[in-house]
Amino acid sequence: MIQHQINKKKIINDPVLGFINLQSELIFDLIEHPYFQRLRRIRQLGLSYLVFPGANHSRFEHALGAVHLMRQAISVLKLKGHEITDDEADAVTAAILLHDIGHAPFSHVLENTLVKISHEQISLMMMKELNELFEGKLDLAIRIFTNNYKKQFLHQLVSGQLDMDRLDYLNRDSFFTGVAEGTIGVERIIKMLNVWNDQLVVDEKGIYSIEKFLISRRLMYWQVYLHKTVVSAESLLIQVLRRARQIAEAGENVYATPALKVFLSNTITKTDFEKSSTIDGATVLNWYATLDDSDISIALKVWQSHPDPVLSKLSQSLMNRKLFKINLSTTPFEPGLIKKINASIQSQITDNKQFASNFIMTGEITNKAYNKHNEKILVLDKSGKIKDMEQASDINLMALTKTVRKYYLCYPKELVVN
Amino acid sequence: MIQHQINKKKIINDPVLGFINLQSELIFDLIEHPYFQRLRRIRQLGLSYLVFPGANHSRFEHALGAVHLMRQAISVLKLKGHEITDDEADAVTAAILLHDIGHAPFSHVLENTLVKISHEQISLMMMKELNELFEGKLDLAIRIFTNNYKKQFLHQLVSGQLDMDRLDYLNRDSFFTGVAEGTIGVERIIKMLNVWNDQLVVDEKGIYSIEKFLISRRLMYWQVYLHKTVVSAESLLIQVLRRARQIAEAGENVYATPALKVFLSNTITKTDFEKSSTIDGATVLNWYATLDDSDISIALKVWQSHPDPVLSKLSQSLMNRKLFKINLSTTPFEPGLIKKINASIQSQITDNKQFASNFIMTGEITNKAYNKHNEKILVLDKSGKIKDMEQASDINLMALTKTVRKYYLCYPKELVVN
Amino acid sequence: MIQHQINKKKIINDPVLGFINLQSELIFDLIEHPYFQRLRRIRQLGLSYLVFPGANHSRFEHALGAVHLMRQAISVLKLKGHEITDDEADAVTAAILLHDIGHAPFSHVLENTLVKISHEQISLMMMKELNELFEGKLDLAIRIFTNNYKKQFLHQLVSGQLDMDRLDYLNRDSFFTGVAEGTIGVERIIKMLNVWNDQLVVDEKGIYSIEKFLISRRLMYWQVYLHKTVVSAESLLIQVLRRARQIAEAGENVYATPALKVFLSNTITKTDFEKSSTIDGATVLNWYATLDDSDISIALKVWQSHPDPVLSKLSQSLMNRKLFKINLSTTPFEPGLIKKINASIQSQITDNKQFASNFIMTGEITNKAYNKHNEKILVLDKSGKIKDMEQASDINLMALTKTVRKYYLCYPKELVVN
Amino acid sequence: MIQHQINKKKIINDPVLGFINLQSELIFDLIEHPYFQRLRRIRQLGLSYLVFPGANHSRFEHALGAVHLMRQAISVLKLKGHEITDDEADAVTAAILLHDIGHAPFSHVLENTLVKISHEQISLMMMKELNELFEGKLDLAIRIFTNNYKKQFLHQLVSGQLDMDRLDYLNRDSFFTGVAEGTIGVERIIKMLNVWNDQLVVDEKGIYSIEKFLISRRLMYWQVYLHKTVVSAESLLIQVLRRARQIAEAGENVYATPALKVFLSNTITKTDFEKSSTIDGATVLNWYATLDDSDISIALKVWQSHPDPVLSKLSQSLMNRKLFKINLSTTPFEPGLIKKINASIQSQITDNKQFASNFIMTGEITNKAYNKHNEKILVLDKSGKIKDMEQASDINLMALTKTVRKYYLCYPKELVVN
Repeated sequence: MIQHQINKKKIINDPVLGFINLQSELIFDLIEHPYFQRLRRIRQLGLSYLVFPGANHSRFEHALGAVHLMRQAISVLKLKGHEITDDEADAVTAAILLHDIGHAPFSHVLENTLVKISHEQISLMMMKELNELFEGKLDLAIRIFTNNYKKQFLHQLVSGQLDMDRLDYLNRDSFFTGVAEGTIGVERIIKMLNVWNDQLVVDEKGIYSIEKFLISRRLMYWQVYLHKTVVSAESLLIQVLRRARQIAEAGENVYATPALKVFLSNTITKTDFEKSSTIDGATVLNWYATLDDSDISIALKVWQSHPDPVLSKLSQSLMNRKLFKINLSTTPFEPGLIKKINASIQSQITDNKQFASNFIMTGEITNKAYNKHNEKILVLDKSGKIKDMEQASDINLMALTKTVRKYYLCYPKELVVN
Repeated sequence: MIQHQINKKKIINDPVLGFINLQSELIFDLIEHPYFQRLRRIRQLGLSYLVFPGANHSRFEHALGAVHLMRQAISVLKLKGHEITDDEADAVTAAILLHDIGHAPFSHVLENTLVKISHEQISLMMMKELNELFEGKLDLAIRIFTNNYKKQFLHQLVSGQLDMDRLDYLNRDSFFTGVAEGTIGVERIIKMLNVWNDQLVVDEKGIYSIEKFLISRRLMYWQVYLHKTVVSAESLLIQVLRRARQIAEAGENVYATPALKVFLSNTITKTDFEKSSTIDGATVLNWYATLDDSDISIALKVWQSHPDPVLSKLSQSLMNRKLFKINLSTTPFEPGLIKKINASIQSQITDNKQFASNFIMTGEITNKAYNKHNEKILVLDKSGKIKDMEQASDINLMALTKTVRKYYLCYPKELVVN
Repeated sequence: MIQHQINKKKIINDPVLGFINLQSELIFDLIEHPYFQRLRRIRQLGLSYLVFPGANHSRFEHALGAVHLMRQAISVLKLKGHEITDDEADAVTAAILLHDIGHAPFSHVLENTLVKISHEQISLMMMKELNELFEGKLDLAIRIFTNNYKKQFLHQLVSGQLDMDRLDYLNRDSFFTGVAEGTIGVERIIKMLNVWNDQLVVDEKGIYSIEKFLISRRLMYWQVYLHKTVVSAESLLIQVLRRARQIAEAGENVYATPALKVFLSNTITKTDFEKSSTIDGATVLNWYATLDDSDISIALKVWQSHPDPVLSKLSQSLMNRKLFKINLSTTPFEPGLIKKINASIQSQITDNKQFASNFIMTGEITNKAYNKHNEKILVLDKSGKIKDMEQASDINLMALTKTVRKYYLCYPKELVVN
Repeated sequence: MIQHQINKKKIINDPVLGFINLQSELIFDLIEHPYFQRLRRIRQLGLSYLVFPGANHSRFEHALGAVHLMRQAISVLKLKGHEITDDEADAVTAAILLHDIGHAPFSHVLENTLVKISHEQISLMMMKELNELFEGKLDLAIRIFTNNYKKQFLHQLVSGQLDMDRLDYLNRDSFFTGVAEGTIGVERIIKMLNVWNDQLVVDEKGIYSIEKFLISRRLMYWQVYLHKTVVSAESLLIQVLRRARQIAEAGENVYATPALKVFLSNTITKTDFEKSSTIDGATVLNWYATLDDSDISIALKVWQSHPDPVLSKLSQSLMNRKLFKINLSTTPFEPGLIKKINASIQSQITDNKQFASNFIMTGEITNKAYNKHNEKILVLDKSGKIKDMEQASDINLMALTKTVRKYYLCYPKELVVN
């Protein structure tokens, strides 16, 4: 018996943070659940491994890392005299563990093509289902996650400018991509956290660490998350999936693993998730909960020899890493240019007029996705006064938080544009 | 044009080694080939990620790392006055790049179940095919790889007690598992390499580094490669694949991706590989060259709901990480004990007598696989005399190199053995 | 003989950079010279070790590190097609090795009290003396150091916004203080260096690394170099030395080691250095070349029991780390406040009116000392166009380079200011 | 007031261990005492910085590091159910903080020449004096330090095979010398500590970490602590100090700082320490408590121009790093060889027969000093049974713990031995 309890508090080796101590039975049991185990099979950074060969780390590891940081943050805040009960500590830890549980494989890509619902909404659905299974033990975690609990700073630890999600992923992504410059002083930032007026704030001594955090985050956006080759690969994957769906909708045969078939052949909406309708003997949520990177990977491999020339060519490009050339611009591309490229594609790549548009992708990228929390970072000085980070720092940080928008245009590398 | 050449010499971020500079166009082109790209989708350590969540690194990264170390070793040896021509340097680098190209996903497991041929044999076949494609540019690499080239020390850099393969994987596996103690002083060991009488040897000053290397390797065997939970998971995967094969051979339906189906439904031998017979429109080697982790992953997911109670239960156990209990022993387990467990299984897990044996696994593990090179490590002293490492060190290193054999016995965790 | 040559190219272990390979006989011989060996006994960060216990690293290590980075920079620039002859490479390396050779112990402090000459001027004198000894082998190094060589970018590698001095010390000081956040991506910045129009510039891909470098530098200023406790300790040391000098000038006995006595009892000017006048049998420069941290350290220890109550009390404060309280302000302190403190000192610390002013220190600190190069950082884009870093980056970097001035006020901690 | 308490629990940056939290007011106050502050000015590794330029770290840092590890060890043992009261925790922490407080500068050297008493004895005397000052608060710490407390495992945490002293210094010395291979898995070893039958033991899972610890220690002996150039430098320093003492005893003038003069001009024994006799107005212990590296450093500098040709030449050799050639042998050197060298010295270095012996040094080094604890490492298996590490490990560890003795012979490098 005792043996068993020890196991539930077991220690996990993490290359980034060292030993992670789970500490709680509830956390252990949540990790054991198939919903959470699925995260082992979803890469944190989607297709980025095509540019950064080391970036194979999973959402599973990241969630454990965020749990570890949360434990530290709780301990720091308690030492500074802020009350956090054991129940609240468990709840906020469970909330951070599960904050990403609803992610699809290649999340941004799939949310653009196959699933008409955000991963945040699915995360919440999964938490609620787990809460039933765990007989209400997640009540408080869900209230904190949805910002419906009186202590708002607990929610901010899960989702805010300085949440444990972000602190872990910036460091972790920096570690696995090998972009060492992205490293942030997580340990120090956590030591500088404080609570003022129920808001998560930063002690004044931590200003330079926060500046460095903001700069590192910016560096990671442009050097990793929005790396142009990664953007090109992702837009290619979107194109592939759209084409596969077109074919499926036209009633033609498209190979798919069972889970992928559900989302490829049906148009699934938020309502389908909610009303628990079943397809092939399982609810939509249950199907979703089995989707992982390998479903997409297998499909791409098989589609390379699909009779449809567009699907096969696009799949081959992605599988063999013959990615499309990508141009970036701060202004939208001229329709004239796009027309010209389209014409070149028709003469060089495919003579089918309808097919041509499949070989040219345009769109825009912004750092917004990584920057969703627009609230300010508040700084607490020694005298107990509060300042906005922008006032507290004597460099202009506005630029670091503003949304930058770039337009991209992709087409086959071998294309000669006349 | 110049732009293109620069790309071919591009720099890759590696979390373990920093910047890796490919330096050669041939190496770049080999990496681009689908045979090599496949390694991106095969985890270096198979199922170990179930125990070490960070161990998702791929054989692709490892091969690039070994290339990087090879460049350093070549440069050290040249500085010490040993002739290595540019052609030889390119060839030995190509040989290390491709040394693992024939690995199957979950290599040891598949070599025990689906494929009756070693990955070394397949690596050689693939190299030969690439050599044709590259019009003989790999001639010398193949001769070095197969130890048919006059300068034997070049072969030893690819495959020997201190080869670049081993130096890279020990460090890399230590890095990604988070078992920091496995770290070896790669940079220093390489600086201590020398050649004596056409043999790769170590300068005397490097003795303590070599001792530490041997101890780290040993630590990695028992703490990572032969970790009991990993052994349990792998034996479960073997069991699953065997059962799937039985069902397929009995003519019943078993879901499989196209590539996996080829190896599940046919008994493929070395001859089939060699005679280039085709199945479903592709050679056996070509089918093999598309197999990766996701084929196995998808099969396991789908088999969880297969009508066969054995296949479904075993697949569920593996997917949901309900791994079997494992006992280790230095002597074989008593047949009486196994009989008793078998009886318990029949009364508690399945009442089908025939099925019971599927839920009990026995076998042996040795450190041999990781220790295949039995040749000695030679030490060169300042006066130019050569010693065997065992003489040179004043601790007894015999034990570090001897084969240790352990017997294992696995059965379901929930089983009460009476 | 050969043995000897090998020694001259020997490899040095460096905790920050790994193995440092000296590569050149000239560099080796310069390091062997007592002028350079003296740097082993001068802490890079003066009194900072009173705040950061690990900051005992010496100017010796730093100079070797800068040599190592210079070798890398040369190799990168040559790969990018810029001509650097072997002689130029040796000269620029010698220049960086010797760039700090003229530093006094606790450099800024001594330049404010005992020595009326800058360390840069002394460095040049020492180089010239070494040049005679080495029979002109340093001619080119000196021309590069003094910016009198046609290839200006070589000078900028020694002294400029992105010189090897700065790249090494930022990283090294970050390493030894334990302020991990100060770490900069040296390897990457060096890879991004380029030359345009004879100016050292940065490739556009390196913009984010440069931003991070600027932020890290800023963080190091305020968190380390201008740490308030360090400023307090340094101003105390200035006060101690001034008092000792007063006593010596008054003809009273003040203990000093032979080298310190020279500078304590005489007013030495640049002219004294230049005209090679001798004191006690050695030139001023030669006396200077024997001064190190231990001369100051011994004096402080002995002065703790000096009959002068001011000297003894101040020395005790510094030795036992009873540092003075320090207030910082962005505006000068009110004369009224200073008067009040002075009065409190007279009633609480010493009743001697004249002595009181020794226990109150005011002054200003700026980040200027660390920021002397006002020239711009230039960025080279892919099309070969040059931009100023401030245009190239879309955050406002002006603030990062502007001089920040703070006023400080120190007085004994135990003082109650009424 | 509160402010003050917070200060006493302040956080210190440590490059090796990150943030060190002092946690206790007593520890803070002990650190503030001049006895402890002195350790800032004593290098942990004496003259090793002549070989490893980064090895300037002080005994001060090491003692803080050992405190940090002690806190972790206490917390691990308490979690495993072993009672350690708050008083015991404070006492064992104070004991490790002060365990090295009695070290002289260049400890082994001075114990061989100037001070006829071991540093352990002085540490105890200093602790007793501090205990009086702190009104008995160190009673329990002293009992633990001297192994006179009922819970023996507490003593073993301070001084034993796996004490916190050793765990910290192995890692720290590895860090600062840059001999990265010496790194041990401190965090893991501490997690594996346990108590059995009042003895500090290791959990069975930690066997491989212990093996690695033993090998790393061995590597550090031979690669750092007993590095031949370091041995040569230390024997030169012994020779210098002996000569200075001879001259002083002959009544001639030898420059010395006040503190050094006490020990150079008098023969101080343990009794002098104990009977509190005063010299020049201070007790012997108080004089000792002011000695640090700078006293030796200054003397060496000044002695370079001493009229005695032996003292000046030896001092010059050490200051300018013209170290003597050193030969090592596992058997004592032949008297004939020594005679021959002596003769060569008389003809080449000095024609004074009596002086010659000052230029030849012989002696022996052993790993004993670093290996004083001969008790076994005990291993606790899962079933609660205890084994000796040598049985538990299947490699032969005897060799790792045995005393290795090497003989050395040093003489001037320029000597031609005929």
